[in-house]
Amino acid sequence: MINQETLHVQLDERTYPIIIGASFFKNGFIFDEWITGKDCLVVTNEMVAPLYLKSLVSQLKNKNVVSLILPDGESNKTLTIWFQIIDKLVAMKASRDTTVIALGGGVVGDITGFAAASYMRGIPYIQVPTTLLSQVDSSVGGKTGINHIQGKNLVGAFHQPKLVLVDIDTLTTLSKRELISGLAEVIKYGAIADNKFFCWLENNMEHLLTRNPDTLIKAILKSCSIKAQVVGEDEFENDKRAILNFGHTFGHAIENIKGYGEILHGEAIAIGMILAAEISPLDDIERNRLEALIKKAGLPHVIDSVNVDSMYQAMLMDKKVQSKKLRYILLRSLGEAFIDDNITEQNVLGAISNRMV
Amino acid sequence: MINQETLHVQLDERTYPIIIGASFFKNGFIFDEWITGKDCLVVTNEMVAPLYLKSLVSQLKNKNVVSLILPDGESNKTLTIWFQIIDKLVAMKASRDTTVIALGGGVVGDITGFAAASYMRGIPYIQVPTTLLSQVDSSVGGKTGINHIQGKNLVGAFHQPKLVLVDIDTLTTLSKRELISGLAEVIKYGAIADNKFFCWLENNMEHLLTRNPDTLIKAILKSCSIKAQVVGEDEFENDKRAILNFGHTFGHAIENIKGYGEILHGEAIAIGMILAAEISPLDDIERNRLEALIKKAGLPHVIDSVNVDSMYQAMLMDKKVQSKKLRYILLRSLGEAFIDDNITEQNVLGAISNRMV
Repeated sequence: MINQETLHVQLDERTYPIIIGASFFKNGFIFDEWITGKDCLVVTNEMVAPLYLKSLVSQLKNKNVVSLILPDGESNKTLTIWFQIIDKLVAMKASRDTTVIALGGGVVGDITGFAAASYMRGIPYIQVPTTLLSQVDSSVGGKTGINHIQGKNLVGAFHQPKLVLVDIDTLTTLSKRELISGLAEVIKYGAIADNKFFCWLENNMEHLLTRNPDTLIKAILKSCSIKAQVVGEDEFENDKRAILNFGHTFGHAIENIKGYGEILHGEAIAIGMILAAEISPLDDIERNRLEALIKKAGLPHVIDSVNVDSMYQAMLMDKKVQSKKLRYILLRSLGEAFIDDNITEQNVLGAISNRMV
Repeated sequence: MINQETLHVQLDERTYPIIIGASFFKNGFIFDEWITGKDCLVVTNEMVAPLYLKSLVSQLKNKNVVSLILPDGESNKTLTIWFQIIDKLVAMKASRDTTVIALGGGVVGDITGFAAASYMRGIPYIQVPTTLLSQVDSSVGGKTGINHIQGKNLVGAFHQPKLVLVDIDTLTTLSKRELISGLAEVIKYGAIADNKFFCWLENNMEHLLTRNPDTLIKAILKSCSIKAQVVGEDEFENDKRAILNFGHTFGHAIENIKGYGEILHGEAIAIGMILAAEISPLDDIERNRLEALIKKAGLPHVIDSVNVDSMYQAMLMDKKVQSKKLRYILLRSLGEAFIDDNITEQNVLGAISNRMV
């Protein structure tokens, strides 16, 4: 019997649960109590639709359900696709009590969430994330958005879901590469906030890679808990929440330069964490442990074919740039992150050069 | 010496002031203390730019200022124009501490506000409304948005400004028709929430029409106060805030059918208030007083060339439709509005027919 866990993300009147377990699609899940109105729009993509759309829709028993299948991939997180969702809502005469359900990974969640956030200035939204990355990352925090040709997630909104339902059965159909990409964010949570969890990951990485259900549920629950705690203290990303971006200033720049889809988010973040650790005041043992865990997960730890200067320019476009000054999330130790505004360009260029092949 | 008034819109950590007065552009206004970062984007339109852009920019003394001039008119409140603002922000490498200033009427304010709301999921925003309508309406409430071909403001966000600066000098260059359009919303505030203000308007309409500065300031202050009180009780439009939509279910449908720009917002709302009064449990004396004040302001009170059925269909597309059921904001008396879910289609069609010419 596989565990089921519920985590409540505490955000005043926007508090919502993340329910994590197995076989929700197979055995039935009572969605209806989470949906106030009669109408639902289920948004998914062409990869996920054949696997899970039918069983999800069959559980929306007393609702009028419309579904929309998007093309797959980060390159589709665009203005045009976002507006297709808006058009669908308009066509179904969706009102403020229509619920939008996102069934898929981070791209589906982010773009659908932004449509739910902006249609009529915000309508109810349920997330059913089907990748490890989206289960541990976009499940918490209410970030929605689309990409601009100049940068990732440059357009979006904060919009909290009513419910996040994580069915780890969906991870059985996830490619090995996608699973590993998700593990980068899991490692990040240990690194920035929880030494004990980091140690647990060192001891349980094999079970995660073989997709042991209870190990996965524990890793997802712990990751979401850490993120929820940080977000609860800083919902609109004024300061503290920035530590969640450990590895991301570098990582986003890598994604941007290599092209979305060429490198997976978690892969870029893994390299980003290595680079951030290079300029962190960590002792060598801990720096090596971080690198070892990243390698153990099967994640990349060096960058290829990236020009150092163009990478730095891309970093300057990052959202965390305050008045053109780059801020870095660094580690004091494994389990403790901090924000540093005083890293020089030379330090950074040095770290990038060190890790290029 | 003309008065200066400040109203604080109370919304917890999103509380902001509306400063209402004259000659801010002429005599200087210390904008800098409201702007945290170094960079500003001033968005205005081709009508307003020649009148006020230069003097506004000259007061942003220690800032890097970029300006963007949009085409004029409601028909430009589109996805494309909104994305032009986003592109401008990207091009100037705007970050989370870049401030966006909207200089213009409701269209400029709404579309610029939505760009500020969605760029990097929200950056600071200052409104300098230059029409009476935008001064009394979009100054309060944080509503931003763009139109969809199927309906007004179907896409948008709630995003509160840091400051609203109302310089009534801008009303001297406003066309008579635009001024009168703004008076429809002013009348609405009296009708829904403040009998005394309604009486004051009956006695001071001539001074408003001749643009007496102190009378205008009082009307703007009172209108914003009423709206602020209602919004403060219901920031995200769950229930109570709906009374601000008195006349708007009808009004939006009229605008939609006649085409944005053909009829001004306030003109449509004036007819909408007359229709809502027709189906309200008002006594005849009060119903006549509302109509008399609308006429005194020079606002329309009948609809021409509108098909009753197509108008009803357009009403069904309104944001206030809950699960396909139309809700009406009605008056119990002059100064007291309420929400009624039980008005029949026949009642409504009857009211529309009564007021067609």
